[in-house]
Amino acid sequence: MKILGIDPGTGICGFGIIEGKKALDYGVITTPPHTPLPDRLEDIYNSLHEIIDTNHPDVMAIEKLFFKQNITTGISVAEARGVCLLVAKQYRLPIFEYAPNQIKMAISGDGHAHKHQMQEMVRLHLGLKTIPKPDDAADALAVAIVHSFVAQTLVANTTQ
Amino acid sequence: MKILGIDPGTGICGFGIIEGKKALDYGVITTPPHTPLPDRLEDIYNSLHEIIDTNHPDVMAIEKLFFKQNITTGISVAEARGVCLLVAKQYRLPIFEYAPNQIKMAISGDGHAHKHQMQEMVRLHLGLKTIPKPDDAADALAVAIVHSFVAQTLVANTTQ
Repeated sequence: MKILGIDPGTGICGFGIIEGKKALDYGVITTPPHTPLPDRLEDIYNSLHEIIDTNHPDVMAIEKLFFKQNITTGISVAEARGVCLLVAKQYRLPIFEYAPNQIKMAISGDGHAHKHQMQEMVRLHLGLKTIPKPDDAADALAVAIVHSFVAQTLVANTTQ
Repeated sequence: MKILGIDPGTGICGFGIIEGKKALDYGVITTPPHTPLPDRLEDIYNSLHEIIDTNHPDVMAIEKLFFKQNITTGISVAEARGVCLLVAKQYRLPIFEYAPNQIKMAISGDGHAHKHQMQEMVRLHLGLKTIPKPDDAADALAVAIVHSFVAQTLVANTTQ
């Protein structure tokens, strides 16, 4: 099963595609600073279509939103997230959502793990020589990995 | 100039198209309760395409978001708003954003006007026999009317 992980954002939107313990592709959809929001949303829409057309994932796993720190940034992240959910739906991909602390807990065993600790676990899990860069791509791979754990459990439960 | 006004939301997304002081079309894009969010976003995307294909607006005017009351609702409104901005961009429509208190001030002269007062002003401005229903359609017409005022000012300024 190919899993497309998404770390939504307007300035930088991370993506990562894994199959088992292998990273097939990862990176970020990014636009120059001060690009108007609608242009960014269209770029995310078109780029995600390309990524799905190229990689043919079976599901999308995406971060849930929390607005603890910056509500203004949070609004634009939600606007980008809406476009990501739309595209997944257009391709009829099942969508799974994970909260940030669920992701940290599943990857590192610590719901408050630091960024570097998370990135190192992602690197180890996928057998990569270096930590995937930029951070948003590593975050997207992390949510894809979490879904691979959950999917294994689902399969284990249904085959008992 | 035909103006498409949008009152974004996931459960109910209001729209209204005006030309001068005439309402050409208005209504809501709505999905049954408990419809999954991605299905709602796809419905908004497809319906907005149809509305634009039918009515050929020249610009989109849309409410800005504020998260004063309910952050959880606010997140889903932002997700819907992202899809509306995307569609406007796909049609290359110029996008104008107005804050709720700007809309109230421009329509009624009172930045804290009540809902019924606003709806009555929308009815009067558009020469309608009854208040446009549902509320979200009236709100969408209100933001379109506000843009028509601003557009007149822009024209007046540029022709001086």
